[in-house]
Amino acid sequence: MYDANEAIQPLFLDDLRVGQHFTSGLYVMDESSIREFAAEFDPQPFHLDEAAAKASVFRGLSASGWHTAAVSMRLLVTGGLPLGTGVIGLGGEIAWPRPTRPGDTLQVESEIIAITPSRSKPQQGIVTVRSVTVNQNREPVYTFTSKILVFRRPAVQAESAH
Amino acid sequence: MYDANEAIQPLFLDDLRVGQHFTSGLYVMDESSIREFAAEFDPQPFHLDEAAAKASVFRGLSASGWHTAAVSMRLLVTGGLPLGTGVIGLGGEIAWPRPTRPGDTLQVESEIIAITPSRSKPQQGIVTVRSVTVNQNREPVYTFTSKILVFRRPAVQAESAH
Repeated sequence: MYDANEAIQPLFLDDLRVGQHFTSGLYVMDESSIREFAAEFDPQPFHLDEAAAKASVFRGLSASGWHTAAVSMRLLVTGGLPLGTGVIGLGGEIAWPRPTRPGDTLQVESEIIAITPSRSKPQQGIVTVRSVTVNQNREPVYTFTSKILVFRRPAVQAESAH
Repeated sequence: MYDANEAIQPLFLDDLRVGQHFTSGLYVMDESSIREFAAEFDPQPFHLDEAAAKASVFRGLSASGWHTAAVSMRLLVTGGLPLGTGVIGLGGEIAWPRPTRPGDTLQVESEIIAITPSRSKPQQGIVTVRSVTVNQNREPVYTFTSKILVFRRPAVQAESAH
């Protein structure tokens, strides 16, 4: 189980290996935040109104896919992908295999699938991470394969010996 | 120029053609909304703190990429992609070629690049749309090639002739 008090060791490019797995904390999608996000960024009836949602292809209220994406980012940044220099995404491939519903508890599972050191900039590289956001029934609601800019561990300053 | 008062005709699968272009309205990314979104969904120092941002690879405060993505969705939904049955994305490929800065004015330009009618469900199809979000200098800050579920125009009820 996720323990919010567990100290998370920040990782650098040097520490990463293909096949490493990471698991985020949990996030509950409550109905009011689903409506608030949708009103601001995705004001379509099936994200705002119960009756319109029931009559739609979603067959009930569901979160904007961009809300699920943004919450997944929060879960990565707050411990789900403990990178010492931040989670700096360049882009990638996303999909929403099923809707996120009011009350769903989300969690992100990530795996490193490729590491490409930069040829021109020896202190950095691109790490490809496959992330899957699942609900409380462990059904995927969002998948994201992202290319992330990761830096090497900063060199420790040598102490002067005078 | 975009005219918010222009009546937008909702389009259905029958109305769409490969090569059709659409242009959204405008959206100004102000600094307070950049900080607010980042605090909630992407709490990394370079999206929240000016000094940390200057020292980072972004060389100044920038919006979370997910904020730019969410605003781009708003621009599509509020006239940028006038689909009669909504903008229902299944997924796609995204990239952030450069940062969005406080004060940037964003606009989304879209083009239909493929239309694939469903074989099993004659009333629907998948439309591939390439969208580019540009800033006030017409530099791309976000690109998104998305697969969108689009429905045919609902049949007009025949009037009874009694």
